[in-house]
Amino acid sequence: MARKIAYALGMWLLLQGIAQGEDLTMKRAQAIFKPIPSKAPDLKDNRSTAVKLNLGKMLYFEPRLSASYLISCNSCHNVGLGGVDLQETSVGHGWQRGPRNAPTVLNAVFNVAQFWDGRAKDLEEQAKGPLQASVEMNNKPERVVETLKSIPEYVALFKRAFPEAKDPVTFDNVARAIEVYEATLLTPGAPFDRYLQGNPKALNVSQRQGLELFMTKGCSNCHNGINLGGEGYFPFGVLQAPDAEIRPSGDLGRFKVTNVASDRYVFKAPTLRNIALTPPYFHSGKVWNLRDAVQVMSSAQLGNQLNSDEVDKITAFLVALTGKQPKVEFPILPRSSDMTPRPMLD
Amino acid sequence: MARKIAYALGMWLLLQGIAQGEDLTMKRAQAIFKPIPSKAPDLKDNRSTAVKLNLGKMLYFEPRLSASYLISCNSCHNVGLGGVDLQETSVGHGWQRGPRNAPTVLNAVFNVAQFWDGRAKDLEEQAKGPLQASVEMNNKPERVVETLKSIPEYVALFKRAFPEAKDPVTFDNVARAIEVYEATLLTPGAPFDRYLQGNPKALNVSQRQGLELFMTKGCSNCHNGINLGGEGYFPFGVLQAPDAEIRPSGDLGRFKVTNVASDRYVFKAPTLRNIALTPPYFHSGKVWNLRDAVQVMSSAQLGNQLNSDEVDKITAFLVALTGKQPKVEFPILPRSSDMTPRPMLD
Repeated sequence: MARKIAYALGMWLLLQGIAQGEDLTMKRAQAIFKPIPSKAPDLKDNRSTAVKLNLGKMLYFEPRLSASYLISCNSCHNVGLGGVDLQETSVGHGWQRGPRNAPTVLNAVFNVAQFWDGRAKDLEEQAKGPLQASVEMNNKPERVVETLKSIPEYVALFKRAFPEAKDPVTFDNVARAIEVYEATLLTPGAPFDRYLQGNPKALNVSQRQGLELFMTKGCSNCHNGINLGGEGYFPFGVLQAPDAEIRPSGDLGRFKVTNVASDRYVFKAPTLRNIALTPPYFHSGKVWNLRDAVQVMSSAQLGNQLNSDEVDKITAFLVALTGKQPKVEFPILPRSSDMTPRPMLD
Repeated sequence: MARKIAYALGMWLLLQGIAQGEDLTMKRAQAIFKPIPSKAPDLKDNRSTAVKLNLGKMLYFEPRLSASYLISCNSCHNVGLGGVDLQETSVGHGWQRGPRNAPTVLNAVFNVAQFWDGRAKDLEEQAKGPLQASVEMNNKPERVVETLKSIPEYVALFKRAFPEAKDPVTFDNVARAIEVYEATLLTPGAPFDRYLQGNPKALNVSQRQGLELFMTKGCSNCHNGINLGGEGYFPFGVLQAPDAEIRPSGDLGRFKVTNVASDRYVFKAPTLRNIALTPPYFHSGKVWNLRDAVQVMSSAQLGNQLNSDEVDKITAFLVALTGKQPKVEFPILPRSSDMTPRPMLD
């Protein structure tokens, strides 16, 4: 009898201990990370309204914003493909390859700044980049405005979306409307979010162990906050330079923005949200397998301190970062008019 | 008093006459044309089910069906742009220009055959063309199947969509699923459809006059039925050869399919449904303005028998062929696996 009591007590203490350990992991995680909300955050100086949001969505899917009329925001940031294009580096005007891997648009509003090097302070500023980049949409602000002004339905929508503007169809307002739409492209409800919201069973055992490793081994030093990344700039290759294929010597990252020597090969830590959906990885897009990417980080950032089992578990945890993908009704775009410029393919 | 009675009687007879004329026009139109239904027609040997339809929609938007992973059916047949790409001729793999203007996917299920030259008997056969054409998606059936089989979610969906198949993921079944989806891309409710359904006010005066001209001048000889076209093959240039720019001498049309001398420069009469949304016009895509296109047809097919006012009215009628565009929820596409082939850009 006494034996049975001792056994039961032992079991109880063990389970309590595990439960407390689980509880501590969750508390720690809740201090480091935040779940993705289901609603878009308020934007600085860019109030969301239903009409602006709708316009922004149309513009996001509008190939006539590119010189060729073949490329829209959604071409490289495909909302059906985790907000990316599954290319090493994006392909744009004239089938040219861009210099870096397309970051996901999903949850991008929570990043401290945009692009791998953070050169755009927000999504509004970001949107203006690809529109004009010769290897992307290859357009000019004046031509974007000329195209939109030639389409009566767009003129009416801009008037309603920017009611205080004298001349509402401007390049700035194109970017503002797109920002309002992009801010709604959120993926709440990932297993990890449900875990952060207090459900210990939302992660399976390996995922929870992966989370623990993620926090104890140092991953969360750079990949933290709501986006598990996107909050700061860090050298790629803290302890060991990655292969030259993965970190091409010609791309100095944030150095090009700040011109500060210590910013050589420094990049914004990318969000790990939906990372299982968005291969290939790194700014070079040279690593296709998620486990391989974790291995690269282990050697480059942590000096190879993760064993194979630990890499597996962290990979399992990363898969738990896949949230509910946004429901998007494909916008019906207005017809061109006789004044609309012709597509330019060359 | 007698004068007043005579006046009233005269007015009454006049209005009756107009009403009867209107009534006759409607009756005649109802004999020549049919409204677009709101539901997809049954397909021969390809039963629609909810799961097949859903799979077909995913495949329609799936860029991984192309060699590059950059081009989907929707790239050239954009459901937000009247089912076309607004290009003279489509641009495909490696930024190559295709030989002909992309016909709209909307209501295409009602065409007697597919492509400008009718070389595909139905949408299933059609879908296989662009997937393999080197200037379009540049893929191979084996690689399409390899890609889809590497994605577990697709394998499961094909099993459910083709429950009787031993090996459900086949190139044929890709085309079958796409056909089922495309058959739902209909645009009912155009003003002209409401007119055909008995509402005389659905067309304004010029549109109704345009309709009368359309029927009396000969347009409806080729452009009739549900799609105002798509039902037969006719020479482009019955009475007068169009400019060589508009009808390039190198494209002999249906002759290439039948090898019959009388089929030189013969093409399937394209549907005029949603024609206002789908410039540029003709198989060459060389005419951007709808009125200009009517003028070209007047000279090429009718020997210039339309005066300027008549061209205006027919153009007004054509604008009344724009229907309600399909509501499409953008599909969330499944993640690739480590077995998924890499995109091929070259």
